Amino acid sequence: MASSLSPPKVPMELHVGNRQKLLESLRHHLSQSTLPVRGFVLLQGGEEQTRHDTDHLELFRQESYFAYLFGVREPGFYGAIDIASGESILFAPRLPDEYAVWLGEIKPLSYFKEHYMVSTACFTDEIASVLQQRYKGPGKPLLFLLHGLNTDSNNFSTPAQFEGIDHFNKDLTTLHPILTECRVIKSEMEIALIQFANDISSEAHVEVMRKAKVGMKEYQLESMFLHHTYMYGGCRHCSYTCICATGENGAVLHYGHAAAPNDKTLEDGGMALLDMGAEYHFYGSDITCSFPINGKFTSDQSLIYNAVLDAHNAVISAMKPGVIWVDMHILAERVILEALKKAQVLVGDVDEMMTARLGAVFMPHGLGHFLGLDTHDPGGYLKGLERRKEPGLKSLRTVRELQEGMVITVEPGCYFINALLSPAMNSPETSKFINQEVIKRFNGFGGVRIESDVLVTATGCYNMTKCPREIKEIEAVMAGAPWPIKKTTSNHVNGL
Amino acid sequence: MASSLSPPKVPMELHVGNRQKLLESLRHHLSQSTLPVRGFVLLQGGEEQTRHDTDHLELFRQESYFAYLFGVREPGFYGAIDIASGESILFAPRLPDEYAVWLGEIKPLSYFKEHYMVSTACFTDEIASVLQQRYKGPGKPLLFLLHGLNTDSNNFSTPAQFEGIDHFNKDLTTLHPILTECRVIKSEMEIALIQFANDISSEAHVEVMRKAKVGMKEYQLESMFLHHTYMYGGCRHCSYTCICATGENGAVLHYGHAAAPNDKTLEDGGMALLDMGAEYHFYGSDITCSFPINGKFTSDQSLIYNAVLDAHNAVISAMKPGVIWVDMHILAERVILEALKKAQVLVGDVDEMMTARLGAVFMPHGLGHFLGLDTHDPGGYLKGLERRKEPGLKSLRTVRELQEGMVITVEPGCYFINALLSPAMNSPETSKFINQEVIKRFNGFGGVRIESDVLVTATGCYNMTKCPREIKEIEAVMAGAPWPIKKTTSNHVNGL
Ligand SMILES: [Mn+2]
Ligand SMILES: [Mn+2]
Repeated sequence: MASSLSPPKVPMELHVGNRQKLLESLRHHLSQSTLPVRGFVLLQGGEEQTRHDTDHLELFRQESYFAYLFGVREPGFYGAIDIASGESILFAPRLPDEYAVWLGEIKPLSYFKEHYMVSTACFTDEIASVLQQRYKGPGKPLLFLLHGLNTDSNNFSTPAQFEGIDHFNKDLTTLHPILTECRVIKSEMEIALIQFANDISSEAHVEVMRKAKVGMKEYQLESMFLHHTYMYGGCRHCSYTCICATGENGAVLHYGHAAAPNDKTLEDGGMALLDMGAEYHFYGSDITCSFPINGKFTSDQSLIYNAVLDAHNAVISAMKPGVIWVDMHILAERVILEALKKAQVLVGDVDEMMTARLGAVFMPHGLGHFLGLDTHDPGGYLKGLERRKEPGLKSLRTVRELQEGMVITVEPGCYFINALLSPAMNSPETSKFINQEVIKRFNGFGGVRIESDVLVTATGCYNMTKCPREIKEIEAVMAGAPWPIKKTTSNHVNGL
Repeated sequence: MASSLSPPKVPMELHVGNRQKLLESLRHHLSQSTLPVRGFVLLQGGEEQTRHDTDHLELFRQESYFAYLFGVREPGFYGAIDIASGESILFAPRLPDEYAVWLGEIKPLSYFKEHYMVSTACFTDEIASVLQQRYKGPGKPLLFLLHGLNTDSNNFSTPAQFEGIDHFNKDLTTLHPILTECRVIKSEMEIALIQFANDISSEAHVEVMRKAKVGMKEYQLESMFLHHTYMYGGCRHCSYTCICATGENGAVLHYGHAAAPNDKTLEDGGMALLDMGAEYHFYGSDITCSFPINGKFTSDQSLIYNAVLDAHNAVISAMKPGVIWVDMHILAERVILEALKKAQVLVGDVDEMMTARLGAVFMPHGLGHFLGLDTHDPGGYLKGLERRKEPGLKSLRTVRELQEGMVITVEPGCYFINALLSPAMNSPETSKFINQEVIKRFNGFGGVRIESDVLVTATGCYNMTKCPREIKEIEAVMAGAPWPIKKTTSNHVNGL
């Protein structure tokens, strides 16, 4: 058996629930404002894109806010929620007759109504008339459109546009923060999909770990991962471009893109750092495994690996509602710095190192980020929360307090990045901590990252990722041992 | 051995040759015009795209005209050719220091100069000053920018834009037709890449054919294809989204997109129509195989399959320089109609059927299209050539006369498409040809397409695609026979 998993049925009730949650939150907000509790939420789904001037179509993947509320996989849709009645309306594109010849059956509106479990389905050229007709209040109906900042990209979402929008009043500020906050706290049905994406991706990571061999190309690891998650998990999309970094490439945090396309040969004695996660029905996973290509950790590899694993485990042990994410980042940094000091890579007082922000030299990225329909799921900075300015902390994609139902990645890392180490070794504030003799050994080492997707529970947290993490486990699995290994204790849950 | 192939080295001389060809053609054109033979060709490469408002980056694939001239895989570049001196200049983006931490080594300009074999490399913020400085003529230097219609998409290419462009004169009409015509006739080095894309894709088709089993999902065939071409061929991109149509889906010409995502279960007794092609260093392949899912053709399946295969072979036998592509389309139609008549699906005079455009009911798409950096490679309609108006013929992506060095797909098909058959059976002009009793047997049949990529040679043509095509071959390969089968005769070349 090539996999113990198969793609689960996707319950469209998930999106019914998402709409209901938004409706409650929005009605509550409006009832406390000067605005009447009526009008329409209106979102525009994504459109298919062609490549430059050609007719080459990129494989369409729905815009995430629209996917959250309606779960629609087809391009060209709009969706509305009638705030007063709670009814939902999908607007489908009116397809030309030739569509049936080239692209498939033209589904009737009733199909979309039933399949996506909405109250009504109409055509996109009917938006203005349908909404006008439904509106019971005085004056122009009010549309709540999606407009707001994505704090990871610094881009703004584009509010829906349609013919006849001038007959409506528009509210561009209310919806975005409320809908974003709905996405931050995951429902059980959302968690089940993220869990499946984690299960199939964890299994694929194990598969890749076992098949990786000296002499292969990095992209062959990517190919094996993609194949396993699609073949056995039905995952047509990944959450992000696979990062298959080996040797010194492990020090390039977002390796794998078109200008650094996973094309190095796997070398004996080097580490692999594989950051790969599949997506299932829009919900993603984000998992990193690090292991020695030849299957056996050297002592230096063990040292760095265990420093990162200790940080990973310390964070997961401490996570529970009320904990501030910045504190978790700082905890991870401290664990790593202490390990580096113990190994004589660093010298001096760890508190002083923390003050000098030395941790950010070895881990310049944030400890983790929300995960859901987007890999970097939105909502990291609630209104009023400011981004920190210090190295490392400024890279955090959230500084929030943990709450039950959040899914967040825990991804400490330790990297030997020349572009950061050189300045640190030349700066009087940081050079004194660095053992120049010992750190030479790590020239070309690359880096280690261990990344799990963690659900915050009522009393602690649950690690949804199920990869071999202990050095013994990794070496055993790479040598052919079964996974999961039967264990009497489990350390992927706390707070039970 | 999982594959007999491995990714070949890509000679950047290919792009040197492409630039030289453009230069010669452009100089020749200018020398016969009122314009002076100087100025600069300037193209802007593609930019990375994020998904909607998020920081999710789509995997970048270079714009094809830019790829043709410069072969650059990185985003954000510009490229120029100095028409007087023939020198080529690449302009690379000036990357911020953090790039080294997140995205990889910041390569020096000398790297791009050497790797891409251009005369000089500069930064994109130097375009205006570098070109001004190089210009030897009087007045403002003239820029030849890319602007013209893609006759498949009806989109226009976007001319390069950069700061300081106002200091130049712009010519928006000269470059596009000349550069497009360069792309139409392939060089030996281009052909070698298209051949490799064909080789690895042909092998992957055979692999999929062998592993396809009743009960699988269509997308599992896609996954196997993608894996084979990436794992063993280093092909990260496909030329287009895989069409994995089984049963009645075979009648949906462009099946496989997000709204029809290869998600049907393979059924015993049905046909599979798989249209899949990998891309290697920008150069693509476009291959369709049709076969019975259970490995044995029924008599009706043989009938339709052989009708299409006869059309495919008849066209390849007739192809040579000077042949008009429209005539090849008509030839394919005629062969298919004759076979359908012989099988009593159709009745009456084939010439009359041709006049009634009955062929387009069974094959509504064009016989084939140029193939190269784009799946639908540009240049199908030279200035002055008009698109035909008749059903079927109006779908042709080219109506040109064949010339040595063209690579064109030969992809006849025969489909049972309700959206076309119903009107044909109800129209007095066409219903008389259709045997209503017999055609019922083909309800739900789907369709057959056989698609090969064919190079026009000096005296005939060469089929670059190496898949099992004869029914005997397909059944043998699906039953485990080796491929290629040793044959004493070869029918994939004519004119030798
Ligand atoms: Mn992550
Ligand atoms: Mn084609």
